[in-house]
This record gives sequence, C-alpha cells and structure tokens, in this order.
Amino acid sequence: MAKRKVGVWLIGAWGGVATTVVVGLAALRKGLTDTTGLVTSLPPFAGLDLMNWDEVVVGGHEIRETTYLAEARVLIEKSHVFNEKTLTAISSQLAKFDANVRPGTLVNVGAKIESLAGPAALKTRNETAGQAVSRLAKDLTKFKADHKLDRVIVVNVSSTEPPPPDEVRSWKWFDIQKSLASKSHSPIPASTLYALAAMQSGSHFVNFTPSIGSDLPGLDEYARQQQVLHAGRDGKTGETLMKAVLAPMFAARNLKVMSWVGHNIFGNLDGKVLEDPANKANKVKSKDHLLTEILGYKPQTLVSIEYIESMGDWKTAWDHIHFQGFLGTPMVLQFTWQGCDSLLAAPLVIDLIRLTEREARRGKIGLMSHLGSFFKSPMGTDEPAFAYQFQELMQWVHSVTNESQTPKDA
Amino acid sequence: MAKRKVGVWLIGAWGGVATTVVVGLAALRKGLTDTTGLVTSLPPFAGLDLMNWDEVVVGGHEIRETTYLAEARVLIEKSHVFNEKTLTAISSQLAKFDANVRPGTLVNVGAKIESLAGPAALKTRNETAGQAVSRLAKDLTKFKADHKLDRVIVVNVSSTEPPPPDEVRSWKWFDIQKSLASKSHSPIPASTLYALAAMQSGSHFVNFTPSIGSDLPGLDEYARQQQVLHAGRDGKTGETLMKAVLAPMFAARNLKVMSWVGHNIFGNLDGKVLEDPANKANKVKSKDHLLTEILGYKPQTLVSIEYIESMGDWKTAWDHIHFQGFLGTPMVLQFTWQGCDSLLAAPLVIDLIRLTEREARRGKIGLMSHLGSFFKSPMGTDEPAFAYQFQELMQWVHSVTNESQTPKDA
Amino acid sequence: MAKRKVGVWLIGAWGGVATTVVVGLAALRKGLTDTTGLVTSLPPFAGLDLMNWDEVVVGGHEIRETTYLAEARVLIEKSHVFNEKTLTAISSQLAKFDANVRPGTLVNVGAKIESLAGPAALKTRNETAGQAVSRLAKDLTKFKADHKLDRVIVVNVSSTEPPPPDEVRSWKWFDIQKSLASKSHSPIPASTLYALAAMQSGSHFVNFTPSIGSDLPGLDEYARQQQVLHAGRDGKTGETLMKAVLAPMFAARNLKVMSWVGHNIFGNLDGKVLEDPANKANKVKSKDHLLTEILGYKPQTLVSIEYIESMGDWKTAWDHIHFQGFLGTPMVLQFTWQGCDSLLAAPLVIDLIRLTEREARRGKIGLMSHLGSFFKSPMGTDEPAFAYQFQELMQWVHSVTNESQTPKDA
Amino acid sequence: MAKRKVGVWLIGAWGGVATTVVVGLAALRKGLTDTTGLVTSLPPFAGLDLMNWDEVVVGGHEIRETTYLAEARVLIEKSHVFNEKTLTAISSQLAKFDANVRPGTLVNVGAKIESLAGPAALKTRNETAGQAVSRLAKDLTKFKADHKLDRVIVVNVSSTEPPPPDEVRSWKWFDIQKSLASKSHSPIPASTLYALAAMQSGSHFVNFTPSIGSDLPGLDEYARQQQVLHAGRDGKTGETLMKAVLAPMFAARNLKVMSWVGHNIFGNLDGKVLEDPANKANKVKSKDHLLTEILGYKPQTLVSIEYIESMGDWKTAWDHIHFQGFLGTPMVLQFTWQGCDSLLAAPLVIDLIRLTEREARRGKIGLMSHLGSFFKSPMGTDEPAFAYQFQELMQWVHSVTNESQTPKDA
Repeated sequence: MAKRKVGVWLIGAWGGVATTVVVGLAALRKGLTDTTGLVTSLPPFAGLDLMNWDEVVVGGHEIRETTYLAEARVLIEKSHVFNEKTLTAISSQLAKFDANVRPGTLVNVGAKIESLAGPAALKTRNETAGQAVSRLAKDLTKFKADHKLDRVIVVNVSSTEPPPPDEVRSWKWFDIQKSLASKSHSPIPASTLYALAAMQSGSHFVNFTPSIGSDLPGLDEYARQQQVLHAGRDGKTGETLMKAVLAPMFAARNLKVMSWVGHNIFGNLDGKVLEDPANKANKVKSKDHLLTEILGYKPQTLVSIEYIESMGDWKTAWDHIHFQGFLGTPMVLQFTWQGCDSLLAAPLVIDLIRLTEREARRGKIGLMSHLGSFFKSPMGTDEPAFAYQFQELMQWVHSVTNESQTPKDA
Repeated sequence: MAKRKVGVWLIGAWGGVATTVVVGLAALRKGLTDTTGLVTSLPPFAGLDLMNWDEVVVGGHEIRETTYLAEARVLIEKSHVFNEKTLTAISSQLAKFDANVRPGTLVNVGAKIESLAGPAALKTRNETAGQAVSRLAKDLTKFKADHKLDRVIVVNVSSTEPPPPDEVRSWKWFDIQKSLASKSHSPIPASTLYALAAMQSGSHFVNFTPSIGSDLPGLDEYARQQQVLHAGRDGKTGETLMKAVLAPMFAARNLKVMSWVGHNIFGNLDGKVLEDPANKANKVKSKDHLLTEILGYKPQTLVSIEYIESMGDWKTAWDHIHFQGFLGTPMVLQFTWQGCDSLLAAPLVIDLIRLTEREARRGKIGLMSHLGSFFKSPMGTDEPAFAYQFQELMQWVHSVTNESQTPKDA
Repeated sequence: MAKRKVGVWLIGAWGGVATTVVVGLAALRKGLTDTTGLVTSLPPFAGLDLMNWDEVVVGGHEIRETTYLAEARVLIEKSHVFNEKTLTAISSQLAKFDANVRPGTLVNVGAKIESLAGPAALKTRNETAGQAVSRLAKDLTKFKADHKLDRVIVVNVSSTEPPPPDEVRSWKWFDIQKSLASKSHSPIPASTLYALAAMQSGSHFVNFTPSIGSDLPGLDEYARQQQVLHAGRDGKTGETLMKAVLAPMFAARNLKVMSWVGHNIFGNLDGKVLEDPANKANKVKSKDHLLTEILGYKPQTLVSIEYIESMGDWKTAWDHIHFQGFLGTPMVLQFTWQGCDSLLAAPLVIDLIRLTEREARRGKIGLMSHLGSFFKSPMGTDEPAFAYQFQELMQWVHSVTNESQTPKDA
Repeated sequence: MAKRKVGVWLIGAWGGVATTVVVGLAALRKGLTDTTGLVTSLPPFAGLDLMNWDEVVVGGHEIRETTYLAEARVLIEKSHVFNEKTLTAISSQLAKFDANVRPGTLVNVGAKIESLAGPAALKTRNETAGQAVSRLAKDLTKFKADHKLDRVIVVNVSSTEPPPPDEVRSWKWFDIQKSLASKSHSPIPASTLYALAAMQSGSHFVNFTPSIGSDLPGLDEYARQQQVLHAGRDGKTGETLMKAVLAPMFAARNLKVMSWVGHNIFGNLDGKVLEDPANKANKVKSKDHLLTEILGYKPQTLVSIEYIESMGDWKTAWDHIHFQGFLGTPMVLQFTWQGCDSLLAAPLVIDLIRLTEREARRGKIGLMSHLGSFFKSPMGTDEPAFAYQFQELMQWVHSVTNESQTPKDA
C-alpha cells in the first residue's frame, strides 16, 4: 500500500502533552516502545488500516520558545518519565519537528498565558482576531504544501484559556464573520481562532482542552462548509474518567451519592496556568457536570485543582464518595489516582489523530460524535457513561471494518 | 389487581444478610425506609408489575438458634446500622417470620460451620444427603401449603462452605441421583442439597454465595425437569463489583495492569467462617477470576480476606492497581471501599427475589442468564464487565415491559 | 475526702463539642461508659486526685436556643454516634444543665455566627463590648453563688469567629481597658470578651478554639491580676495532631518535605460557620504554621476545610506528603483520618477542666504552659512536636504527684 | 586533620541496599548529590567530627555474582531511581569497590537464599560453621591490611534468613564455641557467623536485618572480649517507623486501638526471599511486637508482606487502624506509604557506619544502646517510641559534642 503523508499540527506545540505526543510518535517509529496506552492499537482496530507512525509530519503553533529535547528533559528531571537513552535515539527526529513550529497568537488567551510568551509570539501582540486567523491559516497552508501532505489534523493541546463572554457561546457563523471583520475588539477566544484557521486551511480540528475551540454553533456550520471534521472537548484522562466509570455503578445499583469530593494536585505548566481563577473556571466546570447527568440528581460536589510544584507532571486525585445504601446506611468509597498527565493524554491525542484521519478518508465531514469516550465534555453525544461511550466507538469500528472489506474502499 | 402470595425461603435464615433482608422487607412494608439500594426500584423497572412488600411471607433453614430481633440488635451494637426505633416498630412482624424457620442440614458443611450449630440442627447430624434433601423439601412443601403461597423462592445466603471434590463439578443428574441413593457417604455439598430440595418441592433457587449450589450440570437438568428457575452465584456487592467496573476501563484504554492487589478485612460471622482455609478457598477463587476474563491476560493478582473482629459487618477493601501507561510509565490507582456487607447484599437479594418471581410468572424455566450483574461468578453468561451485564438486564426489562403492554399478559 | 464542687461554664454551651462534653460527663457519672479518650484517665494521672464526674455542675453561654437532648439527638441521627439508651438514662441530668445556660453575646462574632442567633441573644444585640463583659461576668458570679461552687472553669468551645484587626493583637491591659470604656465601637472579639468576663468573675479560662480568647498580652496581665489561670488555643484533635506527630519523623530522618497538602471535609455547624471566609482565615492559619516550626524550613503547603453536609460531625482529612529521600528520590505518604470531631474534642475539654481545676488547687495563676499537647497553637511553649509536648505534661504530672505525697498538700 | 581510613564491609555486598550505599557514598564524594536522608547530616551532628565520604573503602561478602554498576542499572530500570548521568560519573569508583567483594557463606542461609548462589559461593558449600567463620574473618583481616585501614565496620544488609532453633537464642559464648568446634552440624545462623567473623578480626558489627546476627548473649560477651562494638537489629525504614511514631499518639490520647492491619507489597530481591514462609517468619515478627510494647495491651494485629514483582524496590504499605474514642465511638486512620526501600535504608546504613566509627574512636566497646531509633527490634533499650528513641540519640550527640570540646579528644 502506498504510504500516506499526514500532517499533525499541535496548538501548544512545545507543551507537555505535545512533547509527549512527539516523543511517543518518534519512539514508536523507531520501535523503541510498545503501543500500551493507545486505544487504536487494541485488537478490534486492527482491520481499520489506520495511519502508521512513519506517515506523520509534526508542526504546530506555540507562544513559548524552546525545543522538544529541552522540554522532554524537563519531564525526565521533574517527573521521572521517559529515559535518556530513548531521547538520544530520537533527537534528530525531534529537531526536524522543532523546525515546523510557528508563533501562536496571544489574542484573548488571558493575562496568565500571555505572561509565558516569548519574543516571537510577542511580536504578534497587536494583531486583531481576524488577522490572527489569516496568519495562522497561512502557516497551515504552507505546512501542507512544503511537506506534500495528504491531510492535516490540528489538535489543540494548549493550556486552558479563560471562558469568553456568555453571548459568544451561541454565535452562528454569521456572528463570527461579523466579529472577525469588525474593527472593535472581538471576544472570540484564541482556541476558536485556531479552529477557524484550521478549517479555513481545509484542516480537521480536534479540541483536547476545556477551552471553547469549535464548540460554537457557527464553527460546526463552518466545518461543514469547509468539508472538514471536528471533535472535542477536554481529554478525559484521569479523575473524570474515573467518575464516568464509577458514577454509572452507583446509578445502576440505586445507591444514593450524597456527596462527591475530588481534590486534584499537580505541578506542570498547565497547573500553573490554572492558578489563575479565570482559567480554572473552564476546567472545573468541565470536570463537574457529568455526575448530575449520570446520576439523574445533583449530589453535593466539590472539585479542586491546585498547583503543587513538587508533583511535576504527576496528577494525584483524591476522591471521597459518600453514598447511602439500603436502610439509610452511609458508606464511603475513596480513591487516589496517581497518573502522569502528559503520558495519559498523549496516546489519546494520537488515537484521535488516527481516528480523524481515517474518518476523513471515508469522506465524512462535520462533528465526529462517536468519540465521546475520549472527552470530558463530549460534543455530539448525550451519553455520559464511559462504558456506553466506548460502545459507540466500537460500533463505529465495526461499521468501518465492514466497509473496508468491500471493494470500493481503496 | 389481586394480591399475590410469595414465599421467600432463606438458607442461613438468621444470618446477617437474611436478617437485613427481613428487616428491610418489614421496614419497607411499614413505609419506614425508602427504596435506596434496590435495583428493582429504579425507574425502568416501574412497568414490570413486580412483587410488593406486603405480598411476602418469609421462612428459612438455619443451623443456629436465635431470633431476627436478637440478630438485628447485634448489627446495631457491633456495626452501628439500623436503629432501635425501626426495630421496635417491626418486632411483631419479625417474630412471625421467626416462627417459619426450620433446622438446616449439617451434611458436608465443613467443620467450621458445624461448630456453630445449635441443638435442633445437631439432632439431624446423622442424616444422609438423601435424607436431608427429603426433609428440607418437606419443610418447603409444608411452608407453601400452610401459607397458601403462589410460589416459593429459595435464596441461599448462608456462610461459604468448603469446595466439594473436583469430580462432583461435572456431575449430571444421573450421577447426583446415584450419589443420593447410595449408602456410602455422598460428597454433594450442602448448598447443592438445598438446591435439590428447592427444586424437588417446585421452588425456584437463587444462590447468593460462593458455594456450589445449582452450579452443576445435573442441577440445571433437574431444574428444567421440575420446571423451576435458578440463578447464581456469589452476590457482587463490594470489591468485586469495583473490579467489574474498573477493569473494563483499563482494558478500553489499553492500559496494562501489571498487578492488582486486594486486601479485605471484616468482622462478621461470614468472616469467622472464612478464617477456615477450606471455606476461604471458594471465596477467593470467586473474587479473582474476572480480571483475566476482562483484561484478556493475567496480571499478578493477590486477594486476601481476613477476619478483624472490630470491623463488625463493615467490610473494608484496599485495592492497589499498578498499571503501565504510554512509553512504559508505571502509574497507580488505589481505592478503599468501606461498605456494610449485609446492607449491600440484602437489597440485591430482594431484587433477585422480585426478578425471579416475575420470570416465574412469565412461565420461564431453567437458568436465568440475564442476572449476571448481580453475581461475582455469573452462571449462563460470559460477559464479565458490569456495565454490559447491566445492559443485559435492561434488555430483559424492556422485553418484559413490552410483553406486559400486550393483552395476553394477565 | 470532702466532695468538691466545680463549675464548668461552656461558651457555645449547646454546640456539638459542649453537648458531647455534657453527655460524656453525665454518662461517666452514671457509669454508662468507660474513660477511653480521656488523657487524664491514663495510669500516670492516677495519683493526682483529679476532679470526679459527680463533682461537676455545668452551665454556659449560648446564642442559639435548643436543649442538650435535642442537640444530642441531632448527633445520633446525622452522625451515628451515642445511642438512644444512654440518652434516656441521662436525660434528667441534661435538663438540669440546660437550666444553667444564659444568652451569649453577639458583639464582634461576625455576620455568619450572628445569623444563627435566637431571640434571647438577639435582645442583647445593642450592648457595647463593655456592657457585654459586665453582663457575662454577672452570669458567672451568680452561677458560682447559686451552686455554691468552689471554683468555676470557663471553656470556649464556640464556633470560630473572624480575626480582629491586627493592632488588637498587641494590646496591653491598659489598651483593653481603654477600648472597653470608650464610647466608640470596640474591636475586641467576642472570645476575648468571654475571657475578660471569666477573669473578672474570678473564673479560670481555657480557649479550645482558634479565636483569640486570652491570647493577648493584656489578658495575661489581667489573669495574673485576678489570680486566675488561662490556657489555649485551638484543640488539637485530628489532622493537626497527625502533623505534630508525623512532621518530627521527617525532620529526625532528614527527609525533605517538598509539599504537604491537607484537605478536610466535614458537615457540622462548625463547618457551616467556616464556610464564611472571614471565619475560615483564623482556622486555616492555626492548622498550617507548625510544619515550618517543626521542619525548620517552609515546604509548599495547602490546607482546605470544606463543608460537606452529608458528613455530619465526621471530619475526614486526606493528607498527601511528598518528600524527598536519599539521592533525590521522591516518595509519598498519604493518610486519611476519619474521626468524629465532637467525640475527639470533648474528652480533651474534660481533661483541660480537670487539669485546670487541679492547678488552681495548687494556687497557681497565669498561663498554663505545660498544656501544649492539647492545642494547635499552644500559648507559652515553643515546642511544636507532640511527643515532646506530651513529655512536658508528664513532667508536670510527676512534680504534682510528688507534691501530693508530701503532708503540706491538703 | 589527618585523613582517617575507614573500611566498610557489607554482608550482601551487591544487594539493593548495599548497592545504594555504595552509589550514595560515591555520589556524595563527587558532590553529585546532597545529604538529604542522612540523619548524621542534621545540624546537631555538626560538632562530632564524623567520618567523611572520602575516608571510606568498601568491600563485602556476597553469594551472587554481579557488579555494582549492573545492580544499579537494575534499580534504574525496575524502580526508576538514580540516573544514568550519576552512574557514569562514579563507575570507576564502583569498579574499585567491586574488586573487594568476596564469596559469602551458605551455611544455614536456608534453601531460598541458597538457590540464588553463584559459582564462587557454591564452592564453599561444604564448609562447616567453624570453617566459615575462619574464612570470613581472614577476608576481613586481609581487607584491613591491604588498604591500611584504621578500623573496619561490618554491616549486615543481606536478605532475611530463616530463624534458628529456639534453644540457640539463649546461647552463651561457651555454647557457641562448643557448637563451632563440634563435628556435627551447627545450627548457628549465617548472620551470626558473619558477626563472629567480624569480631574475631577486630571489626565492629551492625545488623540491619531481622536475622539474629549478634542478638545472642554469647555474641555480646565475645564483642566485649574482642573490644569491639555491635548494634542491631532490623532497620526501621517504613511501615514500622510509622508504627513507632503513630502508636505513641494513640497511647498518649488514651484512644483504644482495636485493630491494626498492615499490608505491605514490594518487588525486590528481598521480597522474593520473603516469599519463603521460613524467611518471612523472622520479618513479620520484627514488624509486629512494638504495638503491644507501646500501647500496653495487645490489639488485634495483622501484618502481611507480599512479593509483587511490578513494584520493584518500591514498598507500598497500607495500614488500617481501627480505634475507639470517647463514648465508644469507632474511628479510622488509614495510611499508604510509598517508599523506595533501598533508598530509605541506605542513608541509615551510612549513618550507622559513621556513628559506630565515632563511638569506636571514643574507645567504647559492646552494645551501642543509643541507636534504638534506627532499628525495628532495637538491642539494649526498652524504649519503643520513635520520638523518645531519637531523644536518646540526641543525648549521646550532646555528650560526645561536649567531650570533643575538651583538649583530651584528638
């Protein structure tokens, strides 16, 4: 089979998740690691002819200035993940990808993220929202041309931005166009500008963060118009994954959850950004809503996320679930989750890239609603329980596998 | 609608689970408690016309001598559950049910359980397996006649017995008959003798314990011949429920479980019986097999169950799950489950009674394979994941609900 | 030996801690419970001739209106502690103590506490700080006379008040007198007004709360002038006790604590009051300072206290201690503490009463600095480690025991 | 000051603890790590003129065949500790120490340990106990002469051996001599043979393991006769350290410990050896006795230690402490300790070497009873509480510091 050429464009290109995606792809290509953690490497996906590790070119937008190697070493030192031997073996590959990273935009990212910007990003400081979309889209078009790519998939893995004003949430394509064209300040958040740039350049867009991205009526309109795919939002990696797995158990057993307290601590850059209450608001909301959806009533809940520097990329969550059983008897389930955030997120990002690439090859456009199992706030599905979200993915797998076995699929 | 009269016959009639079943039924009948913890009180079950709280008469077999009130007070004092006010309000009801308890059998229960027997049970000490079945069946027939019952459902909630010799596990009805008729000692375990007695008397049989019960080819044959239902085995109440919920998450995410350690401590009578290694063997096996079934490979596992007197009926489990994520990164999930064993088990027993009674009214016979979500070692289904077992139950609910809406169902 | 008559006057007289103190004293007097939890019932205290359970008369100030029996029943229902049988046996004793409760003051208690006030307390609303001290002192003088008491010990077990303006913290007796006499609003907090009233009436004062109480230079001056004892502050019952025990271990082993995170949840009235950030400030500060004192450096710390209604009086703390060992190796200790707040506090309050009464009999006045092991922010000692604080108490015990064996002690 | 030359002789020379000791000493000498984890680097020890990192020569006895570098790499790979950069920098130093390792003895080590032996150790297989002592002592004498050492300190850090027959526990020096001279098989355990060899060669002996070592009356006699020091036994590194810290808190507060359950899992070689019940017996006993000593009564206790391969050197302990507070209220403290065993043990071993070397320079002989804070089963002290054991060490520090300031100390 002829090799495909797939472009992967990461927003937050040198962040922890992106760095782990790039290290992972390079290590997989060299056979230095196995496929543990990749959903798309499970047996049922074998018949799908998914994208391979050597078919990928990586680039991205970023506001800081660093390199993949430098960021990977920070992860080694602060978080005791990866190992020096692997990094040495893939360092030339990492450098090639470094060369494809372009300055991101600072429009509406909020003060906290702006404070992290390097010289190149700061030069763009005065661009309007409309100018930002044009510039970012041009980067993507050039990337595709330079590397002769069949397709480009843009994935937002940047730090969480503050939520936009409420009225933006219902904007149609018409409103967005108007705002971009206006001379006064546009309130469209950065994550949405990236989504617009992706779509404008004919690229597909996946939002792995709690930021808005393409979660506006107008963006779905625009995706269909541009014949591209999109999906989101907020990768479900740790504590919320546990909630999506455990809450259905309490519901199915008619055990009444009286309170569910979740305290999260971690020490990576994402954590530092979340120290700003404006940014944190988006995150906490995304972690909290699904309990009510699953249980059918609202227990008292508490979610905290705190930056504890010594933790590095290790997110530790303590959850205390106080529930009532038969004859009014109170009982307790507690769990502690000690997971390395970037290492949990990165394989899911790779999965989403492979699944989007495959769906694009099928000629589909618009919202991919079968990817709910990957997201904390899944777009296009009402199913909040992980097991049934995963079933939706498996149904997609079966139908695509069946298609693949008919002659018309090349 | 005319009131039904349903007999509930509990093996281990004065044990912690049975006592809680009886207290629960009496409190529900008097409106002293709500239906939290009862699966069959969830909204989807509303259209099934299930048995009501005032349609039940309880009796049972038991080898100790005590009363429901005395046993309930032990639970209050040692485990801080129930409350004195409720007990006072239902004490006359409890006394009525006490009057229906008959001596159980000591045949093949093992030394540990035998040591708990009171005078009435000890009198039967020299009966053979065949004599035991006849005696126990007679008790059931009389119970049905005395109380003019439409149906009787026998539920084994007695302490775990030692496993029988391996060859028994494959016995057909022919082998069982031969063994019961033989003059030499029969190795058929007590739980199976109770199942045989139930079926002989035309009663349905549910095995809520890790003991063998009706989990022999010959018993399924006999159930069909007698036109009765059966189901089992080992109620899935705590740590194993958690395993059936969490292991599918690791599998779906391709996270490699390297080791799963589970330590359980509790201090009720069941715990005391499990102090005997012979009895414990049955229990640990039932808690351990499902991980391999769900994950598709065998991680290193460790399951311990220890009797700690101060815990009373409160079973605390600590599970430590060591798993590998992307790029070989080891991570950890730990949980502690603090649940009151009898209070978790009792509503499921009531659910199983209601669901069996309903299935019997449909005229069904043999193994009920849609009840996998209730059992650690479900008979008749290969599905080990809780969410999908629950889906099987929901499918049954929908089809019975549909039947009920057609005129032919009386 | 002639019976002593000791008055115990509780500020926050019908709160959870006070109610448990009163239930405990009444149950001990009737022999309905043992002395578990009472430090002063340990063997080394046997030779001290401490106050007995039948030598106590209880009264107090309170701003709500209820009774001991009603409050005890709330604890039974919400928190599953005590038992109905004990309450019945001591109900007449409780009623006698109810009769001695007088309206507390609302001066400088903060909006949150004021919102809980009943009609009797509201009537005093317009009193000045100086008027409040006079009124409260008069209540104490009358209590002592009515019951012919040898001594009265006032213990503050009321909810945490907001901290006063900083300048108050250094006030001498002269400044306090001036402020009380002034016509403009005095900033002296309620807890200090209670301390002043106690001292004015010749009673001894113990501050079991994080509120200021007698922790001002001027109050110590006044105590010596009035020849009374005082001690405080903030009872060390749960998470902070653990810190005072564990932090010295890390220090002694030269293990470097990088971060210490402590999340506390509970659902009693005290928790509701702490929902107000003004009140919470006092509390969190009292829980956090000792780590730096013990370790000799400041690790990153985080302390949260949140009101979770379903928890009732059960305070659950999760602490995550991230420490560095040899060769830069990060390690983790986590603990969860599930303790019933009032039940942990009440025996310490009784201990403090007995120890104060004994010290008063020795003719001592001023600050009792040997009681550091009882307090989160102990006055009069620099020793923050629990084990060495306890040693200071034991030294006091030995010297008083030696005194007692000489003829001059009556 | 003239440099001292101190010999450190490790029994189990290439084990995890010994390897970490050697890596640590080499890294400290090169300034590649700080002194975190070393008790003897705390400020109060500064005036003691303790041995420096460049004054040490390491050798040892070992039954396996490997190198320090190979063993250190196993720790990197399986347990994610150390780092490759440090190893590279110290590899030539490690090789020098490798050259000083000699074959250990297999006499009475038990089948499990014997199964790990390499060719060199197997050649000694048929030696008698007496021959073993002579051979091992000769190795030590040669080590001292070859390297012109002032003193040699032997530390047992080998895997736990099975306990000897009970009668051996009371043997005097006379009995030991007789047994060593006898032609029939001597039951003296290997750890004691090493202690005898150490003393015979004029070396000091520290037993960091649960094995008997010098904990026999006859060994103390022999130590005094040979004018050497000894101490032990069983380094207090993790769960037992926690017990020695927490149990005094429960005792001081008169909180009644009803049960204390401790489950330990880990995956290093030591864990593999403990899989043999004979070896485990010694270990569990050493972890369990102190609760009764501290509390003054025996709660129900349970201690398990299980080999879970994936854990590598990381020992995780879950402890569940069920205690009764005031008015019979049951409460719970749980902790999980996630510590890296070798990294916790190694600095204590270095501390013990430094402290023994210092005491030897003072001209002291016999048992060092002031080192109780380092041991699970400390010899020569009855104090089981960590805080007070540490106080005993501090008293020694103060008295030695005072001596040092007088002119007679050279």
